[in-house]
Amino acid sequence: MADLKTQIEALGPAARDAARLLAVSGTAERNRLLLTLADLLEREQAAITAANGEDLARGRQAGLSAALLDRLELNPRRLAALTRGVREVAALADPLADADRVLKDWTRPNGLRLQKVRVPIGVIGLIYESRPNVTIDASVLCLKTGNAAILRGGKEAIHSNRALVDVIGQAAVSAGFPREVVSLVPVTDREAIPILCGMDRYIDLLIPRGGHGLVETVVEHARMPVLKHYNGICHVYVHADADFGMAERIIINAKCQRPGVCNAAETLLVDKAVARQFLPLMVKSLRAQKVRVLGDAAASESLGEQLPEPADWETEYLDLILAVSVVDGLSAAIDHIEKHGSHHTDTIVTNSESAAREFLRRVDSSAVFWNASTRFNDGGEFGFGAEIGISTDKLHARGPMALEELTSYKYIGRGNGQIRG
Amino acid sequence: MADLKTQIEALGPAARDAARLLAVSGTAERNRLLLTLADLLEREQAAITAANGEDLARGRQAGLSAALLDRLELNPRRLAALTRGVREVAALADPLADADRVLKDWTRPNGLRLQKVRVPIGVIGLIYESRPNVTIDASVLCLKTGNAAILRGGKEAIHSNRALVDVIGQAAVSAGFPREVVSLVPVTDREAIPILCGMDRYIDLLIPRGGHGLVETVVEHARMPVLKHYNGICHVYVHADADFGMAERIIINAKCQRPGVCNAAETLLVDKAVARQFLPLMVKSLRAQKVRVLGDAAASESLGEQLPEPADWETEYLDLILAVSVVDGLSAAIDHIEKHGSHHTDTIVTNSESAAREFLRRVDSSAVFWNASTRFNDGGEFGFGAEIGISTDKLHARGPMALEELTSYKYIGRGNGQIRG
Repeated sequence: MADLKTQIEALGPAARDAARLLAVSGTAERNRLLLTLADLLEREQAAITAANGEDLARGRQAGLSAALLDRLELNPRRLAALTRGVREVAALADPLADADRVLKDWTRPNGLRLQKVRVPIGVIGLIYESRPNVTIDASVLCLKTGNAAILRGGKEAIHSNRALVDVIGQAAVSAGFPREVVSLVPVTDREAIPILCGMDRYIDLLIPRGGHGLVETVVEHARMPVLKHYNGICHVYVHADADFGMAERIIINAKCQRPGVCNAAETLLVDKAVARQFLPLMVKSLRAQKVRVLGDAAASESLGEQLPEPADWETEYLDLILAVSVVDGLSAAIDHIEKHGSHHTDTIVTNSESAAREFLRRVDSSAVFWNASTRFNDGGEFGFGAEIGISTDKLHARGPMALEELTSYKYIGRGNGQIRG
Repeated sequence: MADLKTQIEALGPAARDAARLLAVSGTAERNRLLLTLADLLEREQAAITAANGEDLARGRQAGLSAALLDRLELNPRRLAALTRGVREVAALADPLADADRVLKDWTRPNGLRLQKVRVPIGVIGLIYESRPNVTIDASVLCLKTGNAAILRGGKEAIHSNRALVDVIGQAAVSAGFPREVVSLVPVTDREAIPILCGMDRYIDLLIPRGGHGLVETVVEHARMPVLKHYNGICHVYVHADADFGMAERIIINAKCQRPGVCNAAETLLVDKAVARQFLPLMVKSLRAQKVRVLGDAAASESLGEQLPEPADWETEYLDLILAVSVVDGLSAAIDHIEKHGSHHTDTIVTNSESAAREFLRRVDSSAVFWNASTRFNDGGEFGFGAEIGISTDKLHARGPMALEELTSYKYIGRGNGQIRG
């Protein structure tokens, strides 16, 4: 344990030094690193897929599910997509470029000129689970924005991650940066997480991406700021004035288009006034898409069929399951969302502008939509180019966390001898 | 202990409900609350000073130092200044006003119109020490920005704080808000802090303001985001090309104008190239202001006098004590600041624009100045009108934390049936 601690803590000072160099580097230098990385991912394809093959073999031996093995796999097609993604990020506008970094520029009556300027955050710690593509995606976003990264990937992907971080290190060195701009926690022990959580001198921000247990461990132990990319208990509320056809299309999309992601809907709230008309059509349509429908007593009654009751209203099913509750008007819908939601994404379907306005104003979630699918709460769909995840926190970054959200700021003041009176 | 926990946790749901009402309130309503509070502070002066008198009497009995008793005292003159401050905050521009709340407004190719809008953070927990004026100052800034507050003041000020929070409650009710927009932890046990730190369901942000022990306890236990207003190890670096007269004025100001605050200087870095010329003048001038000068071996040698060595370079003296180190050039100065500083405020004095540019770019502190006193890192001096403190964190708020920094944002999307393909 002492050895483990020493080994992990040694990553801190090296990452900090690398971050200091990144912080004064230019857009072109950082993009060169990214483009070199893209080239190397192509050149080293055989080594990477071989390392990934070892993870897959061990995973099969350990009896991982087919779904988990699929998440783990890094075949040539996926590697090519990953490489394309790296080149796309390199081509994105740099929030630290001279044209964009000055956020505010003003001069005080005493002549002191002040600027608020964008700077990198510093060292970002990323704790994630099985998918090795996160190793590249997350590193690339950190590097683009001048941040060093310390990664703690899942134990199932350790060989893949080692190979990928090795390639990142080669790209860094060849672009004139230290290898330690990205480092990988060399061990897969669960104890690594509390150790990282204590390194607040060297890690400026921790981002946990994963299930409840992982996020809980980080929240429990972290001494530094944490941005949680937590679960999405997302709601679609069908208001009394909804267009039923539109409501149906939005609900099917929000639930079925990709049920395993955080901005998929888990709960349908139907206004009491229209439940009897709407629910039979909607449930039929959901079942045609193989969705299992759960519901409260009022939903069963409106439907004229006994639905299984959900165990609670706070489960992220990540599957073709939808819980339906009948609510008595707009305020009851908002109260349900406040009580059971995760402040991620919620949608109202209505033709009433006043109802929509009230919903948009009162619902306290990272994205609140009127007549659109919950699935739009996404960096790509917002036009941000890329995202490291959807923050369910309210400070610093809320919703899609893209390049700008990976930066901080500082104040610069230029005087000619000003002192305070 | 179980009772204490129940008692404190009961504040959470009430504060959350109050925050929901504040979040949909208008500028005029919140300002009416503040102006009513100002009137009540005048009307209830006798009750407040009587409660404060009890704290002072107990403090004297408990043998508090004269300095602590002074911080505790709330006499009619101080109460009048506090009341003036409340009216000033009411008069400030509201970052949530319709004209200012939309931070971004754009429409995607699919017709989905997106807005990034400013919203209150929610419930803010404030943990502070003896000064009862913080109870009013902090509450007023939270209320102005639509946030509810849960306060945990110092045990020495409990009677004063109860009286003040009672007056805030009266003002709230008379302006149509629930009394619980601001609540005070009713007990003074130290155990209250870990309990508050666990209330992440109800407290969106914790702000600890106080000494090392207090901040340490909060960092150790908090499950929610924390914005630390930590200590300032601030440096003034006299570059080889400095104007000596200007350097002297800036150093005297940075050290002496108010030595007990976080943006006062603790360390003077003098370039080796000018140490022999500059230090004798400077030390003489510092001693004329009753400053005790500590120094490293090189400083003593340059001065031609043995200075006491500082125990370390990381002590916030908060007193008329200045530690002097002689450094070999700009990079050595920056390295010293990176190694020993607290990323608060640092100044370079130089006539060289290129040296200044490098210093401003490379020093990673909330404010970095060229030819100006460290004392300017302040919300008032920046023109922000008011501040709740100087954040030494890098996320969400860095440097002066004013009204805008007490808000968060959310995304609003208006569609006409958009679904993802």
